[in-house]
Amino acid sequence: MASAQSAQQALEDALGSAVALSESPHGPMLLAQATHHAVFPGGARIRPHLALAVAGACGHDDPELSMAAAVALELLHCASLVHDDLPCFDDADIRRGQPSVHKKFGERIAVLTGDGLIVLAFQVLATVKARHPGRITQAISVIAQATGAPEGIVAGQAWECESKANLRDYQRAKTGALFAAATACGALTSGAHPESWRPLGEWLGEAYQVADDIRDVIGDPDALGKPTGQDVAHDRQSSARELGLLGAIQNFELLVGKAIRAIPSCPGAPDLRALVLAESARLVPKEILERV
Amino acid sequence: MASAQSAQQALEDALGSAVALSESPHGPMLLAQATHHAVFPGGARIRPHLALAVAGACGHDDPELSMAAAVALELLHCASLVHDDLPCFDDADIRRGQPSVHKKFGERIAVLTGDGLIVLAFQVLATVKARHPGRITQAISVIAQATGAPEGIVAGQAWECESKANLRDYQRAKTGALFAAATACGALTSGAHPESWRPLGEWLGEAYQVADDIRDVIGDPDALGKPTGQDVAHDRQSSARELGLLGAIQNFELLVGKAIRAIPSCPGAPDLRALVLAESARLVPKEILERV
Repeated sequence: MASAQSAQQALEDALGSAVALSESPHGPMLLAQATHHAVFPGGARIRPHLALAVAGACGHDDPELSMAAAVALELLHCASLVHDDLPCFDDADIRRGQPSVHKKFGERIAVLTGDGLIVLAFQVLATVKARHPGRITQAISVIAQATGAPEGIVAGQAWECESKANLRDYQRAKTGALFAAATACGALTSGAHPESWRPLGEWLGEAYQVADDIRDVIGDPDALGKPTGQDVAHDRQSSARELGLLGAIQNFELLVGKAIRAIPSCPGAPDLRALVLAESARLVPKEILERV
Repeated sequence: MASAQSAQQALEDALGSAVALSESPHGPMLLAQATHHAVFPGGARIRPHLALAVAGACGHDDPELSMAAAVALELLHCASLVHDDLPCFDDADIRRGQPSVHKKFGERIAVLTGDGLIVLAFQVLATVKARHPGRITQAISVIAQATGAPEGIVAGQAWECESKANLRDYQRAKTGALFAAATACGALTSGAHPESWRPLGEWLGEAYQVADDIRDVIGDPDALGKPTGQDVAHDRQSSARELGLLGAIQNFELLVGKAIRAIPSCPGAPDLRALVLAESARLVPKEILERV
């Protein structure tokens, strides 16, 4: 438990150092404040913890590089939240229990905050003192592919602007891509084969998106730190809308099982399995089943 | 002349290949169309040509890497234009003589197009087959610094949101940073010392910003491919507003002189000097002086 707490603190510290790179007493103040607001306090930090857990399972032979990749993934996730919350998209007032960036700092600063966080993610990786510098560009490449078009989270958000979209393509890009990049980068920054670890991230990303859809229907806005009922309000595709609530929950459990079976055999596999199960119980608690 | 034309064509081809990376028949179509629209047809492509000219003057010993850096600089510039044109900033209808991205594809796709172009810029660099791979992360780091906060073009745009801003800090970040990155990257991708080449970019960036301010007052919207009178309309700081038109023109000529004197001594220096003079005559033609 102490180790989990210190791992959490190490990640927060690394995120703090990264955000500090974008600050200067001579730079524009509102942008610096908004960038900090977009990253702290965080949510569950699932993607970076996943990357670090996989890096650990693969031997963790370049901890600085694995941490830089974890930080980059989280910064990109934060950037996507800031832009997704903009008035032209979800027009969300609340995020992580506090005012969204555009609500607090205005729309212009929110656009720039997202842009700056995207840049910062790649800057963190490019400037890390890695033991194996040759792995840096691989990590940047994997993360860029998971972020941009045609398959990354930017593309995922763009599916919301198309008149026709396949739910699976949409969710794979919008959520799955960054989860798969997290497991692939955890592996490659520790010198393991990224493609063997990608399926774990893909299944987890899919499960996480289904859990998000379920919580959008029956979650508690206070506990989630964001409003619920958004998929219906924005007429957005969702597993809960497509499969019904019970179907979505069954699907979630199926996906968690697939994720667990996708963990490659390695000394750290039992710990990872336990982590996935604990995380899935946190995402869709048993109490939810009783309320259906 | 034939060589200048083929250099121009090689850059357009490389930009085409980069944009193609973000396209797939299975990806979201509007985002792909908007990304293409944001990059083609281009403007003068000043930043990438500057990077390639400096790379040439420094011996051009890693042409693929220099081209990747040039492409990344132009993609980031295009990204900034798409976001600067958004309704919450300049609300510009026209860019490079055609409808702006948000005018043609809507605000949501415009936000995502800018995001995707930022990601693509780093992806192009991370995946280039360079002769000297060790230089890739250096180039990414220089370009990221020139793009993000606290000193890059994102910070430059953020100065517009502050109640107090120093004109020089604003212009250095908004324009100078990417010009300085262009000369620094031209040098470093060819194995030369980036810092020796940075002053050339800084002076040129400052000169270019002053020229832009001058043309915003007395330029021809059709020839520029964008509306004029924007600095007054948006109550934006500008050299022409601060120094008067004649003062701004004198300042422009002073800055061009400083740029020319900042070219480090090398076999390619005479060609570079001629290029800077030709470019400055294109930016602020003599006819303009007669109209003041």
